[in-house]
Amino acid sequence: MAQVQKPSIPKGTRDFSPEQMAGRNYIFDTVRSVFRKFGYKPIETPSMENLSTLLGKYGEEGDKLLFKVLNSGDAFSKISVDDFQKLVADSTPETSAPSLNSNALSLKVCEKGLRYDLTVPFARYVVQHRSEITFPFKRYQIQPVWRADRPQKGRYREFYQCDVDVIGSKSLLNELELVQIVDEVFGIFGINVCIKINNRKILSGLAEVMGFPEKLVEITIAMDKIDKIGLEAVKEEMLSQGVDEKGFSILEPVLTFNGSTQEKIALISDVVKDSETGRTGVEELKTLFSLIDQAGISQKVEVDLSLARGLNYYTGAIFEVKALDFAIGSICGGGRYDNLTGIFGLPDVSGVGISFGADRIYDVLTGLDKFPKDAITGTRVLLSNMDESSVAYLLPLAGKLRSKGISCEQYPDQTKLKKQFEYAEKNHISYFIIAGESEVQSQTVNIKNLETGEQTTLPVAEAEKFISENILQ
Amino acid sequence: MAQVQKPSIPKGTRDFSPEQMAGRNYIFDTVRSVFRKFGYKPIETPSMENLSTLLGKYGEEGDKLLFKVLNSGDAFSKISVDDFQKLVADSTPETSAPSLNSNALSLKVCEKGLRYDLTVPFARYVVQHRSEITFPFKRYQIQPVWRADRPQKGRYREFYQCDVDVIGSKSLLNELELVQIVDEVFGIFGINVCIKINNRKILSGLAEVMGFPEKLVEITIAMDKIDKIGLEAVKEEMLSQGVDEKGFSILEPVLTFNGSTQEKIALISDVVKDSETGRTGVEELKTLFSLIDQAGISQKVEVDLSLARGLNYYTGAIFEVKALDFAIGSICGGGRYDNLTGIFGLPDVSGVGISFGADRIYDVLTGLDKFPKDAITGTRVLLSNMDESSVAYLLPLAGKLRSKGISCEQYPDQTKLKKQFEYAEKNHISYFIIAGESEVQSQTVNIKNLETGEQTTLPVAEAEKFISENILQ
Repeated sequence: MAQVQKPSIPKGTRDFSPEQMAGRNYIFDTVRSVFRKFGYKPIETPSMENLSTLLGKYGEEGDKLLFKVLNSGDAFSKISVDDFQKLVADSTPETSAPSLNSNALSLKVCEKGLRYDLTVPFARYVVQHRSEITFPFKRYQIQPVWRADRPQKGRYREFYQCDVDVIGSKSLLNELELVQIVDEVFGIFGINVCIKINNRKILSGLAEVMGFPEKLVEITIAMDKIDKIGLEAVKEEMLSQGVDEKGFSILEPVLTFNGSTQEKIALISDVVKDSETGRTGVEELKTLFSLIDQAGISQKVEVDLSLARGLNYYTGAIFEVKALDFAIGSICGGGRYDNLTGIFGLPDVSGVGISFGADRIYDVLTGLDKFPKDAITGTRVLLSNMDESSVAYLLPLAGKLRSKGISCEQYPDQTKLKKQFEYAEKNHISYFIIAGESEVQSQTVNIKNLETGEQTTLPVAEAEKFISENILQ
Repeated sequence: MAQVQKPSIPKGTRDFSPEQMAGRNYIFDTVRSVFRKFGYKPIETPSMENLSTLLGKYGEEGDKLLFKVLNSGDAFSKISVDDFQKLVADSTPETSAPSLNSNALSLKVCEKGLRYDLTVPFARYVVQHRSEITFPFKRYQIQPVWRADRPQKGRYREFYQCDVDVIGSKSLLNELELVQIVDEVFGIFGINVCIKINNRKILSGLAEVMGFPEKLVEITIAMDKIDKIGLEAVKEEMLSQGVDEKGFSILEPVLTFNGSTQEKIALISDVVKDSETGRTGVEELKTLFSLIDQAGISQKVEVDLSLARGLNYYTGAIFEVKALDFAIGSICGGGRYDNLTGIFGLPDVSGVGISFGADRIYDVLTGLDKFPKDAITGTRVLLSNMDESSVAYLLPLAGKLRSKGISCEQYPDQTKLKKQFEYAEKNHISYFIIAGESEVQSQTVNIKNLETGEQTTLPVAEAEKFISENILQ
């Protein structure tokens, strides 16, 4: 403990102050309460997973973004200098490309990695615990994930995901339920959103009728960028991936069509009519929208035929939610996957889920000033500290207030009353109860309402009632 | 995504099932609500800290137990084979001792580590954000920590700490408040505990009057083991550390004395009377017990003159809480520290805090069967799924029940009613509402109370009222 360090935290990570925590807890508490109301149950998985669980699940790019944890103990002792020489041969600074061999070396000294998302650990959980689980299994999970992405505004290396999934049921009622959850959550937040829905089977059908069924991944990856790069650039990317003009000409009207949900469904129904998968997708979309009509959703819900979602494991409905009155990327997204647990040895278990982006929702609530005022309320009552005997005099009152559930603290140090006042104000405390020698003698307290400035002197025996009535009303 | 993997998680880590989560959330919610009632505010810090923040803060042993995170990108590219050869020269398998050089190598490829506790990150937070903080700063923090300890029963590599600290105040009212918090938390849990209190200044005084003030650390480390290894072994360890028989003879009666708090204070007051530090410690202990008497604490509180607590940063009161009716180590502990923030450039800021051990508390609550029954309640109402039209018929009822805050789900798949029943039972659901063709026709529902087996048929319009009255009473 010798020299003084200037404290800092790793780039892309954050400290959360009490004010920020209040906002974040409001978000977590809200989504949690809605998840519960729909019968979802919490699970948690370890922050570290075996790298064998994580690698290969997020594409090549994802593998690079995994944070690896060095084996504990003497991590390097099992590697000989010869091994090392071989392993790093291609990764000297002369070669600029990321080196596979350096990767291989890291795998020799790291067996664990930090969780990259909550979906793969969930799949792993379901397979590992399948004998204890009653299917359909409805779970939610609110935990941080880590990605070694280049940090930038709104993109962090540690951030929370709030995932809600049901696994072991193919019914479209599950999709409806997720739409209802989104509807209710953003209703509570007071954020107007648009819930965009598409179906991966329709995209498969499109790739088929375009004549490039084998290029489904490339087509969806390109489509996914349409909001960012525009139609022309999407076309360019597809052509460079081997899709021909004729194929793209089938897709183009689908991507550019504007109209009602009914009209969109009519259009796509016609375009993919020669693909069985495509027709199934259209049927699913129709059924889902009919359920949505029956259930009555307050927020805007629409078909978005250009919606693709990057992740390859989606196989049915896909969702994305955007805030209507605040410019930010999607604040919620998800979809149905038919074989996520297959890689862990449990094939053919269908599930559907969505993930709420807590950080972006925080930004939207801040930007639209929609955080409820009482979300940031901390202590309600401060008791003064004038001298030893008045502290003892106020001690029972603190206990009584807390027993009513009123958060209350006694200023710990004997200092000037002015300083205690300032403390109360900076902490947004509502009432300051003051007692000094004279109050002890007269068995009274002086109560100052710090919001209105009003001041009252009351018998100490009546203070609890006065505060309770004013605060708990 | 080719070959099938048998899923597993890293040793020493855990998945938490919905049942376990319910218990854990009960613990977290309880401590959180008590912390808040006493005016403490939440903060969170990143899971990863710079290794420079963590190293050297937990002793040599602690440094070894840090989980290091491999730098992202090409972590090894900056090390030449020559460097490597030098760095690992001493760490070949022939030398069995842990190798410093391998450590040096790991520091070349790892800049970050996983949080080892919440105290050091809190100290770092206070210094880094001191200009935004109003002192005294009362914070709580409930987050996981990671230690590369050898996993064993009750010892995990990832576990939660629930820390509550006040920093920037020397008043003993803070110590009282922590005792009150412990009292209230375990009162809610229904766990009988003993709150043991000592003071590090008394230990310093003891080391002085024993004639070995410079051996305070060795003496406290040895004393700390008395419960585990007994008095004789403690004596042996102290003698081996250079304490002489005469010195130990002064300590021995203190360690073995049985008596009331008053008698203990009288004894220690006499033993350390020639040490100024010791006298200050006794005064602090006296004052704290007088405050405890005034505040009225329900749980057992006692002076434990053999209590030492391992951590070197404690400088005043130290606490440890043990369950009286369940054999397990301490379930809560802490103390006052006068210079924790000094290493980060902010000297002389005194603080005091305690940490609740959520995992052990979980074991105690389980062992004593003290988890409240409603802590594990999930969904209350299941709606049947017989066919499309009855699903649509029940859909509005689900919405109405949820709007009353009643957790409710509709079985997603059209399967045998028996299977739906089993699902309800396995998930401990209270009511199963059934509607098929005939109920739709007669505008009724069949409601089965799964706890009592009672069954009722009601007009569907009355179902919400019936359920609300039975559940929300």
